[in-house]
Amino acid sequence: MKTTKIKVPEATVSRLSVYSRYLEQALEKGIVTVSSADIAKNVGVTPAQVRKDLAYFGEFGTRGVGYKVEELLKYIKKILGINTTWNVAIIGAGNLGTALCRYKGFQKRGFHIKGVFDKDANKIGQIMCNNIKVKHIENIPQEIKKNDITLAIIAVPASAAQEVVDILVKSGIKGIINFAPQTVNVPKGVFLRQVDLAAQLEVLTFNLNEEVLK
Amino acid sequence: MKTTKIKVPEATVSRLSVYSRYLEQALEKGIVTVSSADIAKNVGVTPAQVRKDLAYFGEFGTRGVGYKVEELLKYIKKILGINTTWNVAIIGAGNLGTALCRYKGFQKRGFHIKGVFDKDANKIGQIMCNNIKVKHIENIPQEIKKNDITLAIIAVPASAAQEVVDILVKSGIKGIINFAPQTVNVPKGVFLRQVDLAAQLEVLTFNLNEEVLK
Repeated sequence: MKTTKIKVPEATVSRLSVYSRYLEQALEKGIVTVSSADIAKNVGVTPAQVRKDLAYFGEFGTRGVGYKVEELLKYIKKILGINTTWNVAIIGAGNLGTALCRYKGFQKRGFHIKGVFDKDANKIGQIMCNNIKVKHIENIPQEIKKNDITLAIIAVPASAAQEVVDILVKSGIKGIINFAPQTVNVPKGVFLRQVDLAAQLEVLTFNLNEEVLK
Repeated sequence: MKTTKIKVPEATVSRLSVYSRYLEQALEKGIVTVSSADIAKNVGVTPAQVRKDLAYFGEFGTRGVGYKVEELLKYIKKILGINTTWNVAIIGAGNLGTALCRYKGFQKRGFHIKGVFDKDANKIGQIMCNNIKVKHIENIPQEIKKNDITLAIIAVPASAAQEVVDILVKSGIKGIINFAPQTVNVPKGVFLRQVDLAAQLEVLTFNLNEEVLK
């Protein structure tokens, strides 16, 4: 069976994010063109990896000249779908939810937090960030519609994660990031990313372990 | 040039973490053997991917029978270097640092938070989690030695990230996770993971974008 659609590896997508950050910095510094070696050196991958990642999306750059920074950045942002803005809800107004709400990196990339929700009566009505008041999770459906929210970040305890996912899916959310240390299920057509904070440490211990075994 | 050492992709390492979580759940439920299809179904990858990931580390399982849950879990934990415990420092006692300190998923995987550090005089001396008092970042070198800390998590503002990395490296830290939205440099022999929270959202928008373009 042949398929004409090439599946882009998730690792490539993540690296495109990283490349675009470097390109933004280069643009700010007034750099006009960069080579794959420049990108590679600054983000810690090989030049071949940079070329391979970009090759999924067509022909870029000129041999011996490199890539035009502004053009490549614009194109990568289009690929990533961040040539536009996205409205985001945060579910869970604990320490993690608060940290995410105040995280400076979102707004800069076009992600606007438009709602924060919790069950805790003590938290409802409190201002979290950007003048957003915490609302009860009962309000999720109408708030998502009203504020045109497409993405949601889950920062609730593990035991509440699936319940929250179900509410979000019913409310029309299309992409979910789950920080709760609990596997959750979403129906087809809804994209889910499970962020496991311990797994981040495990990549480090894997590397350290390899060093010891060498 | 030939090399006998096979480079294991980072994505494989991350998936091993995910597989091991599923295996832990299976073990708790009293399940003795699982197939690659069982693992695949429960973590959202293909059975071929599971087999390929495990094949980096040797022969596992028996055709038609599957993998012994306890054995495979033990082996994956050994590969990941989490058949032992690791002591971890958190730098930055803001919302994110506090959330990380209280995150239940670390202890469960053998990561013990042994120190929290900040510059803010209002935070020094406060209890963060597990009876840990916030100490001034000046105390990092001696605290790391005293508590046998190998890993560190950075949750400080972008402008302070490199300074903190330098202190950690000098103090003998071998693995660093950086949550600050700022690229930092480490010398050879120190492992670094940059966790970009916006990049997590960008994988979602990439997927949603692809859907639209179909």
